[in-house]
Amino acid sequence: VKAGFIGLGAMGLPMARNLVKAGHELIVYNRTRSRAEALAGESVQVAASPPDACRAGIVLTMLADDPALESIAFAPGHLLDSLPPGGIHVSMGTISVELARQLAQAHSARSQSFVAAPVFGRPDAAEAQRLLVVAAGPSEAVERVRPLLEAVSRRLFVIGPDAAAASAVKLGGNFLIAAMLEALGEAFALVRKHGVDAAQFLEIANSLFQSPVYEGYGRIIVDRRFRPPGFPMRLGLKDARLILAAADAALVAMPLAGLVHDRLLAGVARGRGEADWSAFTELIAESAGLATTP
Amino acid sequence: VKAGFIGLGAMGLPMARNLVKAGHELIVYNRTRSRAEALAGESVQVAASPPDACRAGIVLTMLADDPALESIAFAPGHLLDSLPPGGIHVSMGTISVELARQLAQAHSARSQSFVAAPVFGRPDAAEAQRLLVVAAGPSEAVERVRPLLEAVSRRLFVIGPDAAAASAVKLGGNFLIAAMLEALGEAFALVRKHGVDAAQFLEIANSLFQSPVYEGYGRIIVDRRFRPPGFPMRLGLKDARLILAAADAALVAMPLAGLVHDRLLAGVARGRGEADWSAFTELIAESAGLATTP
Amino acid sequence: VKAGFIGLGAMGLPMARNLVKAGHELIVYNRTRSRAEALAGESVQVAASPPDACRAGIVLTMLADDPALESIAFAPGHLLDSLPPGGIHVSMGTISVELARQLAQAHSARSQSFVAAPVFGRPDAAEAQRLLVVAAGPSEAVERVRPLLEAVSRRLFVIGPDAAAASAVKLGGNFLIAAMLEALGEAFALVRKHGVDAAQFLEIANSLFQSPVYEGYGRIIVDRRFRPPGFPMRLGLKDARLILAAADAALVAMPLAGLVHDRLLAGVARGRGEADWSAFTELIAESAGLATTP
Amino acid sequence: VKAGFIGLGAMGLPMARNLVKAGHELIVYNRTRSRAEALAGESVQVAASPPDACRAGIVLTMLADDPALESIAFAPGHLLDSLPPGGIHVSMGTISVELARQLAQAHSARSQSFVAAPVFGRPDAAEAQRLLVVAAGPSEAVERVRPLLEAVSRRLFVIGPDAAAASAVKLGGNFLIAAMLEALGEAFALVRKHGVDAAQFLEIANSLFQSPVYEGYGRIIVDRRFRPPGFPMRLGLKDARLILAAADAALVAMPLAGLVHDRLLAGVARGRGEADWSAFTELIAESAGLATTP
Repeated sequence: VKAGFIGLGAMGLPMARNLVKAGHELIVYNRTRSRAEALAGESVQVAASPPDACRAGIVLTMLADDPALESIAFAPGHLLDSLPPGGIHVSMGTISVELARQLAQAHSARSQSFVAAPVFGRPDAAEAQRLLVVAAGPSEAVERVRPLLEAVSRRLFVIGPDAAAASAVKLGGNFLIAAMLEALGEAFALVRKHGVDAAQFLEIANSLFQSPVYEGYGRIIVDRRFRPPGFPMRLGLKDARLILAAADAALVAMPLAGLVHDRLLAGVARGRGEADWSAFTELIAESAGLATTP
Repeated sequence: VKAGFIGLGAMGLPMARNLVKAGHELIVYNRTRSRAEALAGESVQVAASPPDACRAGIVLTMLADDPALESIAFAPGHLLDSLPPGGIHVSMGTISVELARQLAQAHSARSQSFVAAPVFGRPDAAEAQRLLVVAAGPSEAVERVRPLLEAVSRRLFVIGPDAAAASAVKLGGNFLIAAMLEALGEAFALVRKHGVDAAQFLEIANSLFQSPVYEGYGRIIVDRRFRPPGFPMRLGLKDARLILAAADAALVAMPLAGLVHDRLLAGVARGRGEADWSAFTELIAESAGLATTP
Repeated sequence: VKAGFIGLGAMGLPMARNLVKAGHELIVYNRTRSRAEALAGESVQVAASPPDACRAGIVLTMLADDPALESIAFAPGHLLDSLPPGGIHVSMGTISVELARQLAQAHSARSQSFVAAPVFGRPDAAEAQRLLVVAAGPSEAVERVRPLLEAVSRRLFVIGPDAAAASAVKLGGNFLIAAMLEALGEAFALVRKHGVDAAQFLEIANSLFQSPVYEGYGRIIVDRRFRPPGFPMRLGLKDARLILAAADAALVAMPLAGLVHDRLLAGVARGRGEADWSAFTELIAESAGLATTP
Repeated sequence: VKAGFIGLGAMGLPMARNLVKAGHELIVYNRTRSRAEALAGESVQVAASPPDACRAGIVLTMLADDPALESIAFAPGHLLDSLPPGGIHVSMGTISVELARQLAQAHSARSQSFVAAPVFGRPDAAEAQRLLVVAAGPSEAVERVRPLLEAVSRRLFVIGPDAAAASAVKLGGNFLIAAMLEALGEAFALVRKHGVDAAQFLEIANSLFQSPVYEGYGRIIVDRRFRPPGFPMRLGLKDARLILAAADAALVAMPLAGLVHDRLLAGVARGRGEADWSAFTELIAESAGLATTP
């Protein structure tokens, strides 16, 4: 399949590489052009502009936040104007439920299709083609892009025609991870103040949950390996805002999401915006009077 | 090894059976004598009283809460008075950090040893010899009872000489599970109100976490299979109180533990004390205006 | 002073009446024209449109929320386009810090002045000229409109040149009231379940705080006089959102604001949007198993 | 009236002085005897022991916490054993609902009466005879001690025969004050980060609430006058624990009480136990990245 690919950041770059490796042809665009050129080769052309990346009729976007995608999508002469009728826009970043809804309407009004296909996984999982993809959108469109989505993931979930639902699922999943971080942070503080070594507690928690997510994040927290970040706190805060916005719009009280949001807010307020988002657990330790890393 | 075993409830009974199956001899005591007699056989004698269960010099207790263990341990003529010097009391129930500390001191003052060895797992795990055991106490004592602990568990963690630390670890682990329930409850409410089927979201969450604990509890919540309970809410509330007591004593603020405590309190206040503790997630759905089971 | 006045709702109407009573001349506009005509008289002309209300060079707006003010202010041909250079726009509704900032910039770019002058008080206080006004904006502009602001208030606070600061203060004050409601709701539930009559507790609380705000809201809660509302819950929720938005923008974690937001969200989700916002205290009673009004 | 008085701390001493000033005769006991002797005079005898203070048949206790009162009341040979039948014990400190209940039963079993009569007010209010007293107990007993209670207070509330109810009311009132501190702390942080001076915001809040409690505490917070404390944080934490215990026992979820408890816990964990309890607001400012006092 031939497709445009916009956004070659920490996640987008390895995803694009896996697409090429699987035999797809890409027209890549990145704001910082050098990252696109580094990828150029037999199956990869470099687009001069976002509209140029749309000429294959399918375009994937992997952008950091709503404003980035909005400016690429809605600015005059950009995606919505450049995709041909029948074209497909696949957004793979984590975006708000509201923006997913707007894009679905705007593309539909132009006889184009919008597929929301956000991914779970950090850069190392993107590299290893181990992402989870949750896709929603018109079913023919989803089927057309299925080979692309499968090329970057260990598993693809197709959840229906409503693109906004994929956003809600992605935000719900991120919330589960953030909640786990708060839980681990409080539990570590509790056992440490009762004389238990955090690493030992983690080993037991791992035996209990048997989950690579607990293992991975638990290890980062125990080792205080917050820099460089796998996922920086300022983006974690962005996600927490999207979660609360989705909850507010649907009239769902989510106090634990509020708690996590407040942790991330305080973490950023106190200068940890570029640390891994799991570093908010340091604030829990600190408030218990335990020594922490700066 | 020959040992007394006190407390043949939903957890104690299958544990005792596994001990016998592994070749140990038991002198069992249960308040409701018929449950003890049902177990009687070649390797199982029925004790006439708790002190009678102490005559082997090792006694295991598996009791529901602090008051139950206190009355068995401290009442005149009971455990502390009945165990010979050099005897070992192994408490396998979930008890407060404070009571673990008191028992350690009291036994030590009588030249006896106290081992706290609380277990993770529900009755089906006890049946299947799949419990996790976290043991702490004087190391010779732990070594002497190791064969007993291994006979009921899929894994045994020995974490040091301080019995209270084992209580803290057990409470920390239970807190992690309770926190997961709150997180799942909020996430389900969020995605359901955005039109996503809870079962579908659970499948994705399972693919993300790959944890049998998420799978098991997620399934119960999605199916609303709260009765009969695997672990009744009134005992969950008891555990939440022990967690907050341990946090308070160590000056650790645990807002998520407080949130879970409040859910369980409200659940019990509104008549769900005998439902599974995961039924507090129904309160989350309810506050979002979603229909729930009574 | 002659001025336009836009927005004759439950608050705007009595404020406009007090302005007239104090000798000012008004050009009034209201979306539902009949409410404007009811006010027409010697010193009151009815404007045909919002721009028409701007011709006196000073215009006061008293609108329910950000979207209402945005549409009046930014729509082509409206306030910003209609006010002459040197003109003054005084917004007296509760608006977001962000909108106050945008309006200040937009008016300034047109050589106009924007004064944010939100008010504290419910319709009865507006009637009785007992509002508190918190004004911020360019000082000459504030001085020119001072007689208008004094005509509706028992006290006027001028807090500086930054209009957004007045919004922040107003939101901070509303937050204090909302927090008091949560506190009263929890305290009432506590003492009622210990056998104390809520009215008796309120009398003691009044003797302690000696505050008409506690007295007034305490009475409403004790008597369950939530309908008709003094301030409907759906507007309370709107304010809670503005508070959290202001907190988020300034990186201030406000867990109590989050708690109140969640109460209002649940109240609206469960059908109390048109009850007085203090009715969220019923949810607290309910979660404690106490009987409440529907 | 002649009465014993036990506990001459920061609150007890000025209360005892006011009793004497009003013409009552006291037999005073204090653990540190010198404070009792300083009061000795025509109407004041110094008791050699707590039982000695009981010989007048009426004894008032003003002790810092449950353990202090328990040891005075229940220790062999102390209050319960020393008061004659028909005697009255009036406890004026802030004690748990549970202890009030136990004391009521224990005194009643000895044909004595127990009156719980906790007070609202800080040492300066005690000095100025401006305390609020909330009394509950058998009505003849309350009437007999009424002149004593009136001699220390600006107002006396008698709320019925159940002593525990007075404890619940006192804890409910303290909770309202603690909740106000949290609200002020969050509001100050919000407006400060939007460029508003905290003192100016307080002036507006005072105009809104018109409450001396807001004025007094607001001033302390704005001026950061936390040392010496009017009421030390470690005692505030004790009260928060009693509030949560009363809430838990009655199955009332009080998330705001939990929040305040966590603030006080963190404040004490980080070395502010001897600062005024309102100093927990510094933690709020700190988490927002604002500078605070150590």
